[in-house]
Amino acid sequence: MTGSVTVIGLGPGDPDLLTRAAEAALARAQDLIGYIPYVARVPERPGLTRHATDNRVEVDRARHALELAAAGRHVAVVSGGDPGVFAMAAAVFEAVEAGDPLWRTLTITVEPGITAMLAAAARLGAPLGGDFCALSLSDNLKPWEVVTARLEAVLRADFVVSLYNPISKARPWQLGRALALTAEIRAPDTPVIFARAVSRPDEAIRVLTLAEARETTADMATMVIIGASGTRLIERGDGVRPYVYTPRSVPA
Amino acid sequence: MTGSVTVIGLGPGDPDLLTRAAEAALARAQDLIGYIPYVARVPERPGLTRHATDNRVEVDRARHALELAAAGRHVAVVSGGDPGVFAMAAAVFEAVEAGDPLWRTLTITVEPGITAMLAAAARLGAPLGGDFCALSLSDNLKPWEVVTARLEAVLRADFVVSLYNPISKARPWQLGRALALTAEIRAPDTPVIFARAVSRPDEAIRVLTLAEARETTADMATMVIIGASGTRLIERGDGVRPYVYTPRSVPA
Repeated sequence: MTGSVTVIGLGPGDPDLLTRAAEAALARAQDLIGYIPYVARVPERPGLTRHATDNRVEVDRARHALELAAAGRHVAVVSGGDPGVFAMAAAVFEAVEAGDPLWRTLTITVEPGITAMLAAAARLGAPLGGDFCALSLSDNLKPWEVVTARLEAVLRADFVVSLYNPISKARPWQLGRALALTAEIRAPDTPVIFARAVSRPDEAIRVLTLAEARETTADMATMVIIGASGTRLIERGDGVRPYVYTPRSVPA
Repeated sequence: MTGSVTVIGLGPGDPDLLTRAAEAALARAQDLIGYIPYVARVPERPGLTRHATDNRVEVDRARHALELAAAGRHVAVVSGGDPGVFAMAAAVFEAVEAGDPLWRTLTITVEPGITAMLAAAARLGAPLGGDFCALSLSDNLKPWEVVTARLEAVLRADFVVSLYNPISKARPWQLGRALALTAEIRAPDTPVIFARAVSRPDEAIRVLTLAEARETTADMATMVIIGASGTRLIERGDGVRPYVYTPRSVPA
C-alpha cells in the first residue's frame, strides 16, 4: 500500500512550539483529520482536505484516517501536545490492531510534540526536576478506582504528579476528590500549579498551595501539576510569579 | 539587570526535532553553555562564545551562566531532550535559589524540547498511551532505596515506566537490579523497549520481553521503557519491527 498516516503533535498552541519535523509532515499531507480546535490550528492550503470532527470517539477518527490511507492518500492526524500522551496515537494503533490486516502494511509514523506538562513546567521553572508521573484523571476509559489507586501510589512514592484531563462538564467532581486524596498524603504547603492554555493568547497560570487548591480553578484546558515533598518556590518580589522547581537531589 | 539565561531543550538529536522557539533562542544567544556533546550540536557563528565543559557538576555550569547573565550577557544553557526532565533547568533554579539575590531579577526562561521518552515512544508506536512515569535510575543524587521504592510503587500501580539514566560506567549494576525487581511484579512477556540514540545516526531500537531483557542491552544513550500490563505488540511480519502501544482503556 502506498498511502500513509502521520500522527502529528501540534504542541501546546504557539506555532513556534512545533518541531520542524511536524511542520514538514503537515506540509506533505493531503488529508487532515482531528478534533475541531486542533484542525483549526493548521492553515488551509490548496491540496489539503480538512476533516474536522466533533466526534469524541477517537477510534472512529483513526479508522477514517486508515481508510483514506488504504486508498492511497497521505493523511495527517493531528493532536494537541504530543500525540503519544493521552491523544490520538494510541487510538490509531488500537484501530490498526482491530482493523483490516492490510493496514499493518501502511506507513504509519508519529511526530512527537511538546506535551502540556513540559510546556507548563517550562513556564514555571522546573517543577518536573525530579521523578514524575503523567496520570489522566478521566474515568471514561478506566475505572475511577484505578485512577485513585494510581494517584495514591505515586503520591506516597513522592513523585511530582501531572494530571491530564482534570475536569470537564461531564466529569465535574473527579479533580476535587483527587485534591482531597492528595491532602491526606502531602503537606498543606505543597505547591499545586494550575497552568491553563499555556502559550496561547488566553494563557492563565496560578501557583497555589495544596491547602488553597480547589477544583474550580481548573477547566478542560488546564494542566494540574502537584509538587513532590521537595518542590519549592523561589520568590521574586511582589507582583512577580515565583519560580517553581523540584531539586534533583533527594536527601537520604 | 539586563542579561538573560535561556535554558534550551535540543531534543533527542535530529535538528528537525527542535522547536522554532528553541532555534530562535539559540540565534539570540551570545554565550552557549553546556556539556560537550550538546554544545557540539549548535553550529558555530560569529558573536557566539561557546563554553563546552566536561564538568559533571551541573550547578557549577548553572552558576557560570548566571554570572555571565549578571554581567549583561544573553546566555543559552543547552540540554539534550527537554531541559526540565533530568537536565539543566532544575540545576539553574537550584543555583538561583542558593546564589546572589540579584540573580532573581534576571530574565530566566526555559524553552521546552522533545524529551527522550517522547521521541522513543513516537518511534515505536504509542507505548506511553496510558498513565506513565519518568524515573531516573541514577543514585548519584538520591539513595538507591528511594529509586527502588519508587520503581516498585509504579510497577504495582501498573504505570508504563520510562527509565532515564539507566546505566553508566560508574553505575553498572542498577539497571540489572531494576529489571530483576520488575520481573517480580510484571509478567515475563511484558514488552521492554531499549531505544538508543533516537533520531541520531547511530539509532538502535530493540523490543524485548521482560524475560529477555538484560542490562547489557543498554548504555548511557539508551532510554528504557517498561510496558504496563496492557502494553501490546502489533506484529507486522518477518524483519519488520512490531508496533508497541498501550491501549487508552483499562478494563474494570
